[in-house]
Amino acid sequence: MEGKNFFRCFFFICSVLLITLFTIFNFPNPISSKVELLQCATNSAWCTSKNRILRHPTAASLPHDHTSDVPHHPLDPLTIIEMNKVHKVIKSLFENSAYAVHSLILEDPDKEVVLKWKKGDALPERKASVIARASGKNYLLTVGVESGEVVEHDTSHISGYPYVTLDDMQKVMSAPFASAHFNRTIVERGVDLNHVACLPFSPGWYGEAEDGRRLVKLECFNTEGTANFYMRPIEGIIVVTDIDTNEVVELVDKSKHIPIPKAAGTDYRLSAQNGPMIKLANPVSMEQPNGPNFVIEDEHLVKWANWEFHLRPDPRAGVMISRAKVLDMETGLFRNVMYQGFSSELFVPYMNPEEAWYFKTYMDAGEYGFGLQALALEPLNDCPRNAQYMDAVFAASDGTPYVRSNMICIFERYAGDTAWRHTESPVVVDKEIREARPKISLVVRMVASLANYDYVMDWEFHSDGLIHIKVSLTGIVIVKGTSYVNMNQVNQNEELYGTLLSDNIIGVVHDHYVNYYLDMDIDGSDNSFVNVHLQREYTKGKSPRKSYMKVNKTVAKTEKEAQIKLKLYDPSEFHVINPNKRTKVGNPVGYKVVPAGTAASLLDPEDPPQKRSSFTNNQIWVTRYNKSEQWAGGLFAYQSHGEDTLQVWSDRDRPIENTDIVLWYTLGFHHVPCQEDFPIMPTISSGFDLKPVNFFERNPVLRVAPYVENELPVCKAAVSS
Amino acid sequence: MEGKNFFRCFFFICSVLLITLFTIFNFPNPISSKVELLQCATNSAWCTSKNRILRHPTAASLPHDHTSDVPHHPLDPLTIIEMNKVHKVIKSLFENSAYAVHSLILEDPDKEVVLKWKKGDALPERKASVIARASGKNYLLTVGVESGEVVEHDTSHISGYPYVTLDDMQKVMSAPFASAHFNRTIVERGVDLNHVACLPFSPGWYGEAEDGRRLVKLECFNTEGTANFYMRPIEGIIVVTDIDTNEVVELVDKSKHIPIPKAAGTDYRLSAQNGPMIKLANPVSMEQPNGPNFVIEDEHLVKWANWEFHLRPDPRAGVMISRAKVLDMETGLFRNVMYQGFSSELFVPYMNPEEAWYFKTYMDAGEYGFGLQALALEPLNDCPRNAQYMDAVFAASDGTPYVRSNMICIFERYAGDTAWRHTESPVVVDKEIREARPKISLVVRMVASLANYDYVMDWEFHSDGLIHIKVSLTGIVIVKGTSYVNMNQVNQNEELYGTLLSDNIIGVVHDHYVNYYLDMDIDGSDNSFVNVHLQREYTKGKSPRKSYMKVNKTVAKTEKEAQIKLKLYDPSEFHVINPNKRTKVGNPVGYKVVPAGTAASLLDPEDPPQKRSSFTNNQIWVTRYNKSEQWAGGLFAYQSHGEDTLQVWSDRDRPIENTDIVLWYTLGFHHVPCQEDFPIMPTISSGFDLKPVNFFERNPVLRVAPYVENELPVCKAAVSS
Repeated sequence: MEGKNFFRCFFFICSVLLITLFTIFNFPNPISSKVELLQCATNSAWCTSKNRILRHPTAASLPHDHTSDVPHHPLDPLTIIEMNKVHKVIKSLFENSAYAVHSLILEDPDKEVVLKWKKGDALPERKASVIARASGKNYLLTVGVESGEVVEHDTSHISGYPYVTLDDMQKVMSAPFASAHFNRTIVERGVDLNHVACLPFSPGWYGEAEDGRRLVKLECFNTEGTANFYMRPIEGIIVVTDIDTNEVVELVDKSKHIPIPKAAGTDYRLSAQNGPMIKLANPVSMEQPNGPNFVIEDEHLVKWANWEFHLRPDPRAGVMISRAKVLDMETGLFRNVMYQGFSSELFVPYMNPEEAWYFKTYMDAGEYGFGLQALALEPLNDCPRNAQYMDAVFAASDGTPYVRSNMICIFERYAGDTAWRHTESPVVVDKEIREARPKISLVVRMVASLANYDYVMDWEFHSDGLIHIKVSLTGIVIVKGTSYVNMNQVNQNEELYGTLLSDNIIGVVHDHYVNYYLDMDIDGSDNSFVNVHLQREYTKGKSPRKSYMKVNKTVAKTEKEAQIKLKLYDPSEFHVINPNKRTKVGNPVGYKVVPAGTAASLLDPEDPPQKRSSFTNNQIWVTRYNKSEQWAGGLFAYQSHGEDTLQVWSDRDRPIENTDIVLWYTLGFHHVPCQEDFPIMPTISSGFDLKPVNFFERNPVLRVAPYVENELPVCKAAVSS
Repeated sequence: MEGKNFFRCFFFICSVLLITLFTIFNFPNPISSKVELLQCATNSAWCTSKNRILRHPTAASLPHDHTSDVPHHPLDPLTIIEMNKVHKVIKSLFENSAYAVHSLILEDPDKEVVLKWKKGDALPERKASVIARASGKNYLLTVGVESGEVVEHDTSHISGYPYVTLDDMQKVMSAPFASAHFNRTIVERGVDLNHVACLPFSPGWYGEAEDGRRLVKLECFNTEGTANFYMRPIEGIIVVTDIDTNEVVELVDKSKHIPIPKAAGTDYRLSAQNGPMIKLANPVSMEQPNGPNFVIEDEHLVKWANWEFHLRPDPRAGVMISRAKVLDMETGLFRNVMYQGFSSELFVPYMNPEEAWYFKTYMDAGEYGFGLQALALEPLNDCPRNAQYMDAVFAASDGTPYVRSNMICIFERYAGDTAWRHTESPVVVDKEIREARPKISLVVRMVASLANYDYVMDWEFHSDGLIHIKVSLTGIVIVKGTSYVNMNQVNQNEELYGTLLSDNIIGVVHDHYVNYYLDMDIDGSDNSFVNVHLQREYTKGKSPRKSYMKVNKTVAKTEKEAQIKLKLYDPSEFHVINPNKRTKVGNPVGYKVVPAGTAASLLDPEDPPQKRSSFTNNQIWVTRYNKSEQWAGGLFAYQSHGEDTLQVWSDRDRPIENTDIVLWYTLGFHHVPCQEDFPIMPTISSGFDLKPVNFFERNPVLRVAPYVENELPVCKAAVSS
């Protein structure tokens, strides 16, 4: 039996790995540990120090060695040294019995402490926030890094589990092969067990029957002949498995008649292409030969043009921007814009109610860790040549740190657009006036690869004070096997739940939602949210015009007044203002949120996935600042019931006028797949802006200098091109 | 009297100019004519051959001499030689009596003729479409370029006038100074008559009283001390003038108590800045040292990557894209996507019903000529260093041609983004897979400066088959004078109709709408429009899920079924498909229109400006192809009543299934000005996509090569930086 051999082989490899890991952890080799951290020979296959590029292409510096990092800023992430200290505390806490660390990150000091802190001051006490599981219980702990003091927070009232660890995922992937039924059905479907990969998908939550154990639903693929096994689903098999015990709880085994789609034409890798490549002879490159105009001070403080912000990787959110401040040219002072901003939760419901598909309603940040799934970026192609990179230090499931290198890139962008321009008519002025200024921005990028899908997450800072937040979707569409090879075989009334993309492959309709947490602090923490309503007003005979559009401003008093559904024919602008600070002519200073293309969830509000991801009920929300309310889908999103969500917090209807408030924005995409998405999809993007509105006294980029020919780089084509 | 002197002086200068022009036109100097055409010493101050840059920075070619241009393609614009021939015909037609040419352009051959034509074939008969006025009548003429044959088309059933000519505008600007009342009120307001510029604004149309004569409403500004006279309105004066007679019909003279805002701080020119400039030490540049990857064959046929299209400047639309075809890598054949696309009309209603403001409801393409107002682009700053430029040849109001140089730029863009990418988890595959491909596109850009506002109009072609159409707004917000200098002076119930931007300056609320004509021909002319409706569907107990989103496709039978208002909570995709052609798996080939941020008009549908610009009643329209239906606001938009509009054509409700159809898209912006818009506004953008949907068998950019370090340009910093 090939299946049995595969299983034996797999078990053997796993055992060797476990023994190796055990040896490394328990008998650390002080000489080699530095090298291992960087070379990822240690505790995680997800460590990606390979292929690191140098800090700056023109500098001859080595990759940064994180082993001796020390924190410089209250919001700097935990260092390797600090994590190791916390690790010891956790180990002793659980008395060396079985435990898993799901999250080990800095516990941010209280906001007022951070706001008071100045460079040169001693750092506030360093604390770790730890989410762990032991003996079937969730633990939320605060651990003093130096003191070792542990405070346990009661989370017994919150349903769900923390995101799965990478170890959880690796381990559970082998579970199906322990089932004789599973191995038999695979073989009966004509698939070689050596070419089967089962991927762990979160099960959502569909009622109390699913409570009490951590479950995962594995779906399996034929990996033969392609790196793009996603295009070769073994349709109808769902292996419901207990993550903690690795026990197969249920094996759904349907749709045997559906063939496995062929491998031919599915591989997207460069090495797999046989036909001619599309190549433009003269590459266009973003060039900046003397290096960038930004500096990253003390590893995390980014300073560029008129912006300054703290940037850190986070295993759950991915990129975390804090203390974003912009320089006011009029006063020479930096002004607060945003205390903290990050992607808080995702929701990706697939629109197929059948047994093998209904549960696919992913909450990627809370179920998998959005940052945890962000691997090393590919220099030159993920980010342009002038990019610099930032590493992350994350904790493995035993609590030990490892380095995720090149997780974030930072680069300046000039895309050929203007910051502003004007030509004056030569009819009016004596000589032609033609003034134009180049638009240059700073991009912070991370790419999370959630199994098949890739989310390119950009924060783009503009020198006019605008922050553009963009999500780009690419990667691979998850597909469903079908017996059809042509639409003429499909009965008109039959529902496919998607588009026939290729022989035997249906791209299933789905949505993507990304919710952003945006703790705006416009010139201070006490802010208000204003609905600037645009309404038709009738002139009632007082003008040759019948009507015009009038602006009516309303300050939201409580959270429910700030639950906003966007309406094209009943539009508003949405401003976060500081009612205590006005410009010289008396307008309150503010920022507005400017939506672009978005989508709203069409699921029933009482449908379990919609309740869990109820942050998609509105596009905009505003809540009263509460340090514990960060994750729009709940702290423990995995198998959560939806009682710890943005909707629930907002429904408390707390006062939000002239106080510390948080803006939440939900971006959405409906995705009806098309053949162009096969076998890998061209990038689609959407985003929104945070834009100054009467924040500055005047156009802050009026004095940007134009480009002049003799100041631009001197370039020649590469010899090889 | 300073005013009188000014007037005398002005009149003298005008007379000299007129005599000079008359001499030049009637006694052409054959030796100098070439030079004059390029140096703009001839017939139009709007000719912008100055500051031309070379075709290619590395080539030592001279600016293109258009005097001997010949057409190569049925859609090539009329050449100077051809225009001169038509000019002669027109002159003799009107027997040398007074006439004005408002438009003299190629009359496109019939679509079937163009579709049949192949390179090497003789060109179909060249004809000019001429719009002229003589003896108070509009003429729409077809003139055979070689035959001199003239066909007059009856337009007596259409209200309105053709767009004003540049001569109309120049001439009428002096009209107010002939009014003693005007000169007196200016002086009484403390303004030096030598520093007054009156700009001609279209009056809209507000009832029959305004019929029978071509009117313009002049608004005046104090030009002293700033190039940005728009910030110094002489509020409350409106000089209603007859364009044909230059007679002041009515002088509105109100708001004398409102001071003229100060000049200080309003000038945006580089030369006017005294403070420190914002300058990034290391410029980021888009570099392509060996030149671009596109060619422009025969002056108008653009070929880049997998795209080919015909590009020509048009005095009304600006940029006209025709015969856009994309290469299918699977077959090696070019496939039709769009027969023709251009911006058809604009609508910019200001939201103030007061006497000096209510009429400001501009239709810039039809009233002023959107292309006519597009001046020369500023190399390096309007378009990046790697851009190439295209000139226009337009007709002056006597029918003679002149060259508008550098009106359009074309460049390849790499903005640091990916065409697609994927990282495969190292848990599943033996070694890390990380594939990313750079996104490179081709941008065609024009900038129209409609007095104060600048519209950057981009057509961006992507190699995945997507066309992104983008409008960026910048330039100067038109403002209203006020006696207020602080919001604390304003009574809570008082309507400002805008935002106090600076001392004595209110930025008035307004909208911008741009309507695009998109004659999609997906693999042929017979297409259908499909509403791909996304609806909530209940599972009725058949699934643990309560609901999902179902796709319901409906083919629109007639035009009214394709009058589409976008709805966030009742969403659809909108596809133009070829029902006669299917992919291998049987999906009809198509393109979809993908809206991004937009706005809908809030004016009453029966309000005169809304009726005239009723193309803003919906975001999407589809009409049956009709060669004469090109301008969504009507052929003669100036003072039109709204009976020759897209709404009227669509309301005929003609069949649109499986026939030649035109898609129309209206993009919108609400603009509540803010202080950052003073004294010149940072660029804001919105756009929409035409995106292949089951048009290709698979991802057409799968085989795009990644960037490789040693193939990128070799650059060093400029010596001066």
